[in-house]
Amino acid sequence: MSDRTFRLSEAGRANSIARVKALPLGIFDSGVGGLTVVRAVQALLPSEDILYLGDTARLPYGSKSPETIRQFADEDARFLVARGVKAIVVACNTATAHALAGLREHYQLPIIGVIEAGVDAALANPDAVRIGIIATRGTIRSHAYQHALALRRTGLVIHGQAAPLLVPLVEENWMDHPATLMVLQTYLEPLIDKGIDTLLLACTHYPLLIPGLRDLLPPDVRLVDSATTCAEHLKRELVRLNLLAPAGNDGKLEIHLTDLSEEFEGLARRFLTKPPGRIHLASLGC
Amino acid sequence: MSDRTFRLSEAGRANSIARVKALPLGIFDSGVGGLTVVRAVQALLPSEDILYLGDTARLPYGSKSPETIRQFADEDARFLVARGVKAIVVACNTATAHALAGLREHYQLPIIGVIEAGVDAALANPDAVRIGIIATRGTIRSHAYQHALALRRTGLVIHGQAAPLLVPLVEENWMDHPATLMVLQTYLEPLIDKGIDTLLLACTHYPLLIPGLRDLLPPDVRLVDSATTCAEHLKRELVRLNLLAPAGNDGKLEIHLTDLSEEFEGLARRFLTKPPGRIHLASLGC
Repeated sequence: MSDRTFRLSEAGRANSIARVKALPLGIFDSGVGGLTVVRAVQALLPSEDILYLGDTARLPYGSKSPETIRQFADEDARFLVARGVKAIVVACNTATAHALAGLREHYQLPIIGVIEAGVDAALANPDAVRIGIIATRGTIRSHAYQHALALRRTGLVIHGQAAPLLVPLVEENWMDHPATLMVLQTYLEPLIDKGIDTLLLACTHYPLLIPGLRDLLPPDVRLVDSATTCAEHLKRELVRLNLLAPAGNDGKLEIHLTDLSEEFEGLARRFLTKPPGRIHLASLGC
Repeated sequence: MSDRTFRLSEAGRANSIARVKALPLGIFDSGVGGLTVVRAVQALLPSEDILYLGDTARLPYGSKSPETIRQFADEDARFLVARGVKAIVVACNTATAHALAGLREHYQLPIIGVIEAGVDAALANPDAVRIGIIATRGTIRSHAYQHALALRRTGLVIHGQAAPLLVPLVEENWMDHPATLMVLQTYLEPLIDKGIDTLLLACTHYPLLIPGLRDLLPPDVRLVDSATTCAEHLKRELVRLNLLAPAGNDGKLEIHLTDLSEEFEGLARRFLTKPPGRIHLASLGC
């Protein structure tokens, strides 16, 4: 009798684990830049359903204060938790830098940030010593990457460079415009002068600038982009926690934005490989 | 007796008009760009007290949808009305374009927008026929300037050019950077090709780009900037409504921002002539 009860509850437990595995991943960003992370996750984990939230009504986060960024990130996470996601990816460097620790305290589910992933990937090369970071002003100012790198390897020489014009240039679709190359050059020069061996792209918009960056950087500088590395890190975490979606599931993507406009829809299409389908208007209900 | 009562109530009326005149002007913008309007108002109307609200937590408005812009503008106006201003200046082109009519319906006080002022000034020259407008995408898309111009003079040839990178470039303080000149050139070329005789700077950040614009434009193109013209328009309205502050008052400025950061404070200082004093953190209390 007690043996039978035990077997039933084992089955019940397996059943509820299976239900959790089938839940969507929640991914949020201040805007549509985090869709580069979605694209990388779709490529690496095609069975996962994804619920994406972009806080386009209040973007960008990069120039705002730590208190405001924490409040916004908390509202973003609450939106996803209320919709029953199994894990959250903070696909926004600024929000990861300021809010990740607080979110992990408040919410009882795995929360993955872009920073740890980028730092892992940057240090995967044992010869990486002189590391440049480009990011929004908020991310650079937070010293989150600098701190995470310094904790992981002693003797690193780290140079952070705020590059606030790169997001607007990508959003203007001027990846090949000569002005963009000139802006990139202005931002990269001090890093090149310092002899960096690795450049960490610490903003989800920047993967679209890789061709231009490649042209301007010495050929031996390694580029590490936070979108791809974040997807790889997420996969390792889902495997470790036994939370991978059933293989063979055809992963769906549902996009919610707090403000809809033609630009955002256009950008969303450019940032993704597959068409995004209908985009929903989200209210963070304040 | 009845004569005495009449005289008293006349005195009471005069007294309450005097009280209204002494109230501050309310000026709001999505961020700190509207401080170029404040600077122009301080120069022209030095006796006026000014209460400024910059919605830095949610800037920029220029790329957001009409519904969202209207909601934000309404919250901004409500903040100022609750603090007892005598009139409101919408020092944000995007908010003027989308929300001015709605605000005038909702609130019982004079509300002045930047667009009417700019259009007045552009058409002050009777020979103005081919008019170029540069602005954020939201302002251009709204067709508010195009519409206001077309209503005022027949036979105008109007060309709107969205210039979304100019605000970030000004905020990066790159007014003289070669990349900025290249960006300006890209935006101006189609307007120059069309033979404009007047260029309307329909964004409060743009006055800081006037030297670069002057270098790139043919010498006979007239530049009309919305900050100066808005202050002149405001003065005419205050005179007309008998609402000018008592002469000799030493006008004070109180700045409220929905998000405080070093950048915003630094920008505020650059946009103003006089030091702004302590900047307050505003909550739009939703």
